Amino acid sequence: MKAEVFAIGTEILIGDILDTNSHFIARRLPALGIDCYFTHQVGDNLERLTGELRRAWERSDLLLLTGGLGPTEDDVTREAVAALVDEQPVVDPELEHTLRGFFAGRGYAMPERNVKQAWLLPSTRAIPNPRGTAPGWWVEKDGRVLVAMPGPPAEFTFMWEQEVEPRLARLAGGAVIVSRTLKTIGVGEGTVDEMLSPLLKSTNPTIGVYAKQDGVHARITAKAATRDDATALIAPLEAEVRRILGTAVWGADDDTLGKAVGGMLRDRGMTLATMESCTAGLLGATITETPRSSDYYRGGFISYWTELKKRWGVPAQVVEQHGVVSAECAEAMARAAALATDADFGLSVTCVAGLDPQEEKPPGTVHVGCYDRATDRASHISFRFNQGRHAVRERAVTVGLLLLRRTLLGEQPGQVIRSG
Amino acid sequence: MKAEVFAIGTEILIGDILDTNSHFIARRLPALGIDCYFTHQVGDNLERLTGELRRAWERSDLLLLTGGLGPTEDDVTREAVAALVDEQPVVDPELEHTLRGFFAGRGYAMPERNVKQAWLLPSTRAIPNPRGTAPGWWVEKDGRVLVAMPGPPAEFTFMWEQEVEPRLARLAGGAVIVSRTLKTIGVGEGTVDEMLSPLLKSTNPTIGVYAKQDGVHARITAKAATRDDATALIAPLEAEVRRILGTAVWGADDDTLGKAVGGMLRDRGMTLATMESCTAGLLGATITETPRSSDYYRGGFISYWTELKKRWGVPAQVVEQHGVVSAECAEAMARAAALATDADFGLSVTCVAGLDPQEEKPPGTVHVGCYDRATDRASHISFRFNQGRHAVRERAVTVGLLLLRRTLLGEQPGQVIRSG
Repeated sequence: MKAEVFAIGTEILIGDILDTNSHFIARRLPALGIDCYFTHQVGDNLERLTGELRRAWERSDLLLLTGGLGPTEDDVTREAVAALVDEQPVVDPELEHTLRGFFAGRGYAMPERNVKQAWLLPSTRAIPNPRGTAPGWWVEKDGRVLVAMPGPPAEFTFMWEQEVEPRLARLAGGAVIVSRTLKTIGVGEGTVDEMLSPLLKSTNPTIGVYAKQDGVHARITAKAATRDDATALIAPLEAEVRRILGTAVWGADDDTLGKAVGGMLRDRGMTLATMESCTAGLLGATITETPRSSDYYRGGFISYWTELKKRWGVPAQVVEQHGVVSAECAEAMARAAALATDADFGLSVTCVAGLDPQEEKPPGTVHVGCYDRATDRASHISFRFNQGRHAVRERAVTVGLLLLRRTLLGEQPGQVIRSG
Repeated sequence: MKAEVFAIGTEILIGDILDTNSHFIARRLPALGIDCYFTHQVGDNLERLTGELRRAWERSDLLLLTGGLGPTEDDVTREAVAALVDEQPVVDPELEHTLRGFFAGRGYAMPERNVKQAWLLPSTRAIPNPRGTAPGWWVEKDGRVLVAMPGPPAEFTFMWEQEVEPRLARLAGGAVIVSRTLKTIGVGEGTVDEMLSPLLKSTNPTIGVYAKQDGVHARITAKAATRDDATALIAPLEAEVRRILGTAVWGADDDTLGKAVGGMLRDRGMTLATMESCTAGLLGATITETPRSSDYYRGGFISYWTELKKRWGVPAQVVEQHGVVSAECAEAMARAAALATDADFGLSVTCVAGLDPQEEKPPGTVHVGCYDRATDRASHISFRFNQGRHAVRERAVTVGLLLLRRTLLGEQPGQVIRSG
C-alpha cells in the first residue's frame, strides 16, 4: 500500500510554523506496513492543492492530509477534496447539531461560517474530533482512501491515535515493517559501511548506515506478515552486526549516549562529576536528561573564567605551562572535579568554541579529559571540529561521553574518526 | 519568482529524521521576494526523485534541494539532477584535489566512492562547503535555476548564509516581505493580544501574536517594493507596540533571552555566576550560547547531589529547615554562587524535574533565585509547570533569566503568568 502525505497551510510555506504532522505520520506508517513515497507541504490555495491531490490520487492508494479544515475562507481542504472526487458537499444535520452544541457549551453562538465544518460528501464519513470543532473526513472512492485531519497537533495526534491509526491497521493488514537501529561511536561512516559491506546487499532485512550527531547508526529493517516475524528476521542480522562492530555499538533505538554511559555507572555503583569550560554546563545537562541520573551523577563545576579553574583545583603550573585549552588542563580538570565531589570518575571539556583563536589555538580545538580515582590515572581525547559554536559544543559533549565509556570498558582513548 | 523546495532522503520518509531544512528555506524566501509554492520530501530513489524534479522544473523558476549529496550509492541527487538537465557528470580535477586534501588533513586516504562528490555537469558550478566533503551545485539552464545543497543542517545553513542567499538576492529583486518580531516575557498571550487589539486590524503591516517557549512574540510583517520601503512601513508600528508593551519587550528577531540579559550585564560591566541542581548546567549552557559571554559569565556550580550544595556554601540550616527544593534554598544557592566566584550577581535553579515528588513537593515545582552582591539582597520566583522533564528544565532556565532581567531593571520578581 502506497501512501502520500500532505500538510496544508500557507503559514507552513512562509516558514511561520514547522510542519511536524507529516513527520509524525511518516514515523507511524512503517509499522502499519504502509510505504510512504512522498510528503508535501502545500498552501491554502484551492487550485494548487487540488492539482497536487489529483496527481497523488492517480499514483498512490492512500492520501493523508492535515490542515485546512478551519472555518475561514482560507481553509480550502474540504473544497479541494470535493473537487478531487467530483462531489458536492452538503451540511450534515447531525454534525451541525454537534457543532452548535460545542459552541453552546462554551456559552456563545456559532459563527455562521463555521457551518462548513459540518459538511460531508456522499463518499465521506466524519471522524470525531473531541478536541476541536473540525471533524476529520474519511473518504473512500475508486479503491482509494483519503483521510483529512485537522492541523493543530493536539487535535491531529488525538484523532490519529484514537480513530485513524486503528482504521488504517485494519485496512492495510498486510505486511508490517519493523526497524532496529544500532548506534556506534568512534568509527567513521565510511568504515562502518566497509565493515558491514557483506551485509549491505541483504534485501529483507535491509541495512542502512547513517552518520548522526551521536555517531554512526546502522539501521536494520525487516518486512513480514506480523511484527513477531519481522523481529525474528532482524535478530540474526543484529547479532552479526554487533559481532562485526564490537564495542563500537553503545546502544539501540531510543537510547542516548548519556543514558548508556549512565547505565554502566549505575551497574557498577559508581559516581561521576564534571568540570566544563566552553560547554559551560551542556555536559552536565546532557547526562541529566536521563531520569534518575542522580543515582550516579554528583554534579560539577562550570569553570568558564580561567581563574576559577585554579580556584577549583587545577594546578596553576598546568595552566601556565600548557594553557587552559590543552590536554594537560583537561586531565587536571577531570581530576579536580572527582576529588572535590568524592566521585569515582571525573569528566572534563575545554575547547575553543568561539570564532577567534584562544591561546593561539584555532577555533574548534577540543580537549576532553577523564580521571579514574581507583587508579589515579587520567586520559584525554583531543580533536578539532570547526563547525561553529553550537556544533563544537555538542561534539565535545559526545566525545566526552565516548571517553568515559572507553575508560569504563578499559579501552584506549584512541583517535576520534570524524563521522559524516 | 516561484520556488519549490525538496528535502531528499529516505530517512525523512520513514520518520527517522525531521526535515528542518525546508522550513529554514521557507522562512528565508519571503525576504528575498521569492514565492514558495510547494515543499516536498522525497526518498533516495532515482526514478521518483527525477520525476518530481521534472514536474517542478516545468512549473517553477527555482528549485532548492537539500540532501542526497553524500558519497554512498544511496545518494542519488547528483544523478537525478544530471537526468533532469540531460547532461553527463564529469570529475572536476580541482574539486577532486580539494576533496583529497580534506581527507589528507584528517590523516586518512579518501575512499574511492567519495570521488562522485567531485562531479560537475556542464551547466553546473560548484558551491564551496567548508564544513563537509560535499560541495553544492548551482545549476542554470533554460532560464531556470536549481540549487543542490548538503543535508546535514550545519553544512546546509553555512552554505545557505555564505553562498546561496546572496546569489538568490541578486537573482530575485521583486516585491519583498520583511518581518520584525518583538519578544516579550512575563505577560500571557491573551493579555498581549488584548493590549495590541487596536493595532491588529492593520493590513500592511500586519501584526500577529504567538506564544513561544521564551514568551509571547508580536510579529509585524510588511510588503513593499524594496527592503527599505518595507522597513519604513514597520517602524511606526514597532514604536507603538514597544510603547504599549513597555519593559515586557526584551528583544527582537534573532535575539535570545540569554543574549539580551547578557548584553545588560556587559553594558554595566558586571558579572554573573550560577548554581543549578535540576537543570544541571542547562542555565550555564544557555547563557554561553552567546558569543563573548565570557565578558560577563564567570561560571558556576552544578549541585546535583544535595551534599554539594552545603559544601559549596548553602547553609546547612536552610537545607534542613526548608529542603533543597525551596525559595529559601534557591536564594541561598544564588548567594553562594556569587560569593564563591567574586561575581556581581548569582542566579540559581532548584526544582523537581522528575516524575516523582521530592521532599513531598510535586513534580514541576520550580524555584529560581537571584542574588545582587551590591545590595546583599536575594529574590526568587516560584512556580509549577508540570509538563515533563525536558519542558520543566527549559522553562526553569527561561524564568531564571526573567528574574535576572527584572533584578537588573529594578523591577519586582512578580508572579509568572504562564504564556501559551
